[in-house]
Amino acid sequence: MTIRHPKGIQSNDSVNEPDGINYARRGMTFEKLINESNQYYLAKNIAVIHKKPTPIQVVTVDYPKRSAVKITEAYYKEASTTDYNGVYKGYYIDFEAKATKLKTRFPLNNLQEHQIDHMISCQKQGGIVFLLIYFSTLKECYLMPFSDIKAFWCDNASGQKSIPYTYIKKNCYAVPFKLRPRVDYLAAVNHLMIQLKGVDQ
Amino acid sequence: MTIRHPKGIQSNDSVNEPDGINYARRGMTFEKLINESNQYYLAKNIAVIHKKPTPIQVVTVDYPKRSAVKITEAYYKEASTTDYNGVYKGYYIDFEAKATKLKTRFPLNNLQEHQIDHMISCQKQGGIVFLLIYFSTLKECYLMPFSDIKAFWCDNASGQKSIPYTYIKKNCYAVPFKLRPRVDYLAAVNHLMIQLKGVDQ
Repeated sequence: MTIRHPKGIQSNDSVNEPDGINYARRGMTFEKLINESNQYYLAKNIAVIHKKPTPIQVVTVDYPKRSAVKITEAYYKEASTTDYNGVYKGYYIDFEAKATKLKTRFPLNNLQEHQIDHMISCQKQGGIVFLLIYFSTLKECYLMPFSDIKAFWCDNASGQKSIPYTYIKKNCYAVPFKLRPRVDYLAAVNHLMIQLKGVDQ
Repeated sequence: MTIRHPKGIQSNDSVNEPDGINYARRGMTFEKLINESNQYYLAKNIAVIHKKPTPIQVVTVDYPKRSAVKITEAYYKEASTTDYNGVYKGYYIDFEAKATKLKTRFPLNNLQEHQIDHMISCQKQGGIVFLLIYFSTLKECYLMPFSDIKAFWCDNASGQKSIPYTYIKKNCYAVPFKLRPRVDYLAAVNHLMIQLKGVDQ
């Protein structure tokens, strides 16, 4: 199944910026900061977490002599899962990362139903599942446990289209920005793990 | 970094067949059988395990009116990890699947050093890491724990270029082929998990 790539994005760099702004031109994207953090975690033997490649349906390839195989026709496919997964302290980690320019809310249409389904399945298997939300204007990042996302998602049917920033600030885990790693989301995961163990999940 | 795609492969279907045979034309590839098994595991709430998309570097895209974004120039990139990962009974699962036509040995050059490095890192984090080997001529499949692979890989420096079939048959877990799931590798993972717990890993 091919999809129309939203809002004329030229590369994967700004896929997670739902407001159509090319953050690549304004410096590092949120995605790049996370990837850099993952490289740090890997190098320091802290965790093995990777972004999955963007799924692409290859239709036609060309085989030029003495050079790399060239794909000449291909289309983006819809991702069936979240963007990031891996292993940390023996736990399976699965998350999606999203950025928004908005200051007062996180719109739920940043997530797709099949991603929610995937997250439900991972949580059932005992994985640690969450969403990283970056409020780019505020320069604040939060880790929202999947149980919270699910509650808002289910409320969506009754008209709830966004998660208020005030709720996120009060109830989610703040993710510190540092020199290394740039987005230290595992610091927030540690708190989440303590909470999950506390309620015997 | 772009790579030359080995042996004129036209699609991902036969990437895992190191002998250059297009198994797609002879029926289902080993990869497809695993994907089908993963779909079964997912549907039955047994596990959430997916094949990662093949990494592709997109260079040029075209935006035709009223149709899907068309990628007109792209190249295969070298995968930095293994092909499959996910979560099963709370455990992080990570594996590579390879098929060979050979009947007496599994050549170690089916694996790449960065894949071994990735597997080492995952095992350090408490993941369950292994290799699925399909002897297509014999129609036999085995699960080889990563600790075994690592031992042979390290011996490789001293001239060991293959893992003998006799060793695999004697020491690895036979993976049953069934109607559903087609390749029931989690049955072998259950045995591996019992063994790992037994040695307190």
